[in-house]
Amino acid sequence: MSPSPSAATVGMVGAGQLARMSQAAAAPLGIDLRLLAARADDAAAQVVPDARVGDWGSLADLRALATGCDVVTFDHELVAPQHLEALAAEGVPLAPPPPAKLLAQDKLHQRRTLARAGLPVPAFAAVTTQDEVAGFASDHGWPVVLKAVRGGYDGRGVWVCAAAEDLPAVWDAAAGAGALLVEAHVPIAVEVAVLTARTRSGATVTYPVVETVQEGGICTETHVPARLEPAVAARASEVGHGVAETAGAVGLCAVELFVAERGEVLVNELALRPHNSGHWTIEGAATSQFANHLRAVLDWPLGAVEATAPAVVTVNVLGPAPRAAGGQGPTQPDPRARVPAALTDPGAHVHWYGKEARPGRKIGHVTVRGPARDGALRRARAAATRLGGDQPDEHADEHAQEGAP
Amino acid sequence: MSPSPSAATVGMVGAGQLARMSQAAAAPLGIDLRLLAARADDAAAQVVPDARVGDWGSLADLRALATGCDVVTFDHELVAPQHLEALAAEGVPLAPPPPAKLLAQDKLHQRRTLARAGLPVPAFAAVTTQDEVAGFASDHGWPVVLKAVRGGYDGRGVWVCAAAEDLPAVWDAAAGAGALLVEAHVPIAVEVAVLTARTRSGATVTYPVVETVQEGGICTETHVPARLEPAVAARASEVGHGVAETAGAVGLCAVELFVAERGEVLVNELALRPHNSGHWTIEGAATSQFANHLRAVLDWPLGAVEATAPAVVTVNVLGPAPRAAGGQGPTQPDPRARVPAALTDPGAHVHWYGKEARPGRKIGHVTVRGPARDGALRRARAAATRLGGDQPDEHADEHAQEGAP
Repeated sequence: MSPSPSAATVGMVGAGQLARMSQAAAAPLGIDLRLLAARADDAAAQVVPDARVGDWGSLADLRALATGCDVVTFDHELVAPQHLEALAAEGVPLAPPPPAKLLAQDKLHQRRTLARAGLPVPAFAAVTTQDEVAGFASDHGWPVVLKAVRGGYDGRGVWVCAAAEDLPAVWDAAAGAGALLVEAHVPIAVEVAVLTARTRSGATVTYPVVETVQEGGICTETHVPARLEPAVAARASEVGHGVAETAGAVGLCAVELFVAERGEVLVNELALRPHNSGHWTIEGAATSQFANHLRAVLDWPLGAVEATAPAVVTVNVLGPAPRAAGGQGPTQPDPRARVPAALTDPGAHVHWYGKEARPGRKIGHVTVRGPARDGALRRARAAATRLGGDQPDEHADEHAQEGAP
Repeated sequence: MSPSPSAATVGMVGAGQLARMSQAAAAPLGIDLRLLAARADDAAAQVVPDARVGDWGSLADLRALATGCDVVTFDHELVAPQHLEALAAEGVPLAPPPPAKLLAQDKLHQRRTLARAGLPVPAFAAVTTQDEVAGFASDHGWPVVLKAVRGGYDGRGVWVCAAAEDLPAVWDAAAGAGALLVEAHVPIAVEVAVLTARTRSGATVTYPVVETVQEGGICTETHVPARLEPAVAARASEVGHGVAETAGAVGLCAVELFVAERGEVLVNELALRPHNSGHWTIEGAATSQFANHLRAVLDWPLGAVEATAPAVVTVNVLGPAPRAAGGQGPTQPDPRARVPAALTDPGAHVHWYGKEARPGRKIGHVTVRGPARDGALRRARAAATRLGGDQPDEHADEHAQEGAP
């Protein structure tokens, strides 16, 4: 009997741009992707034949996805932990396994786990009343940062409270977000991210540290290499790798880090999947984060991670800003004109996600490799502007400190 | 109304590995591929949602494919010229246009057209009798090469006749191949290929000259850069570009060239589509041949073509050699074991086509970038051996001189 023509089948919960970009990594490796898409026209469902429309909130739909897959992984953090535990108990190979995934889903659990492992996190406390927040601030000073324990990303679920007199209003704003924690506000010199791929067997590779630019809690640019002292970069890399090990990650582990004024490195946020801060790896690293995620979840050997150029800059394209009341609606970027416009720079690597543009939504990105950061940055920004048309109000959310997917 | 989420729809006739590799280039650019596949499990039909099973020999199926596409292109040379002419007459935008495609389909027409344009081709003549072959040989010397005017590739449709006394047997072997031409046998120092992408508007980019290694008429390896004197490389590039211009190519034009002992450059074969000699560009050039083919057929700006490393080597993996009578059948490489085995070199870029292995059939390739040719070559060969298992008899077809797809 002939062997199957494919090397593996990987199930992926979610069909956004991370799954879409995974397809370009899967096909060369002979990996069949099978997606659980929310809608038939999801970004990845446009490019993956085996995209099944279903509900990631339904255990039955998750089970159906998993049947026949070598492993099941994720393009988001949204599947309920109890469903993941149920699938694991039934023998479904999940990557990452549920205990690792939970660290990206529950920020309080994450802070406690990382702190217990000796990894650097901002001072934090669970809070259920304004008095507890005020007590925390009297120990650690204002401002403080309130965070939803579950569900926040791209600046949502994060509220900075500058002073005691602002607390009632901030507390009201956070009402309805469920359990909260409070953290010390870190005076940030620079934000960076460290991506580590880790196999089920425990092999790891860690990508060069990437500098991230955040606006309104959303990552708008990444720069490689990060402008850090070598010792600080080494520390960031060590912390990122340590988080992946502590988590027991299988697949990609993306750790967003604050670098404080004096070079102190603190964990901001993590994701147990490919991450926006790693899109530069598609053209800018020897092996893309998407390829290494697939290799890791299958327990295959990992690929080399060194950068392929002295400077690699990625600029995200976000959906258009809402117009003022009474004005026209936001201008929708039309990819039929804008993708070729972005390509007029022959070194611009253009990625269009096939998503309808909504304000603040990531709809594409551009990567430029070059001999030096400034030139690559200028070119990537110009191409991203041609790709996106109207850019969002960069002050859309003054209350956000952190970035996520 | 929102614009369509995709930037363009490109129809492609054929669903082999060239179409499969096109998908990884299409998705980032927001291009929807629509394939005309011979079978539902064709290499590309495994990774492209809109793969329609049909017959490229049927004008009706070609028409159905084209409806709604921005442009229709090809992953092979097999569509009948009269069908292409019919579609063009109906207003279907074909890339390349039928007169260009015909140069890759009809070798006599190609030789005449290129010679008329002053491009270097081996001495040739149409022949219908053995006497005409003998007459040609008395002018140009033995050996001579007989070629089928239509339909040959990968060493098929090519017969070398070493001496007058071999002619009757060679003539018999070529019987049934249809119209024939005879060519002078070129003493080859090295074989190279030049890939040019040309847009409908006439913009072109030409990739660095690639050295090709042929065994039994099949390209087994490519090396970049080619080991040529600079003046010879420049001449090869000039000829490759000149062929694309003379052809009026739209999309990729791959020109295989003989470099004779004294540095003379002669056109061997051409293809009006992405080509096996360009697989190195996926990781080894700033823009892959597949991306530039799509950009060219859509009349979009072309991407940069410089190499991304000092040396880029690609080694093809062919289906297993047939066993001797009475032995077991050929060992099928099992991708579930062999793809990860090939990945043990972290710098090996592995491409598995999802095709059933048959003797001599290309089923995958491996590319390695490195600081120097010899190291990259050794690593790529080792990874390709791990990927393919049994390798084909390298002397399977002693009678072939040229390589094609």
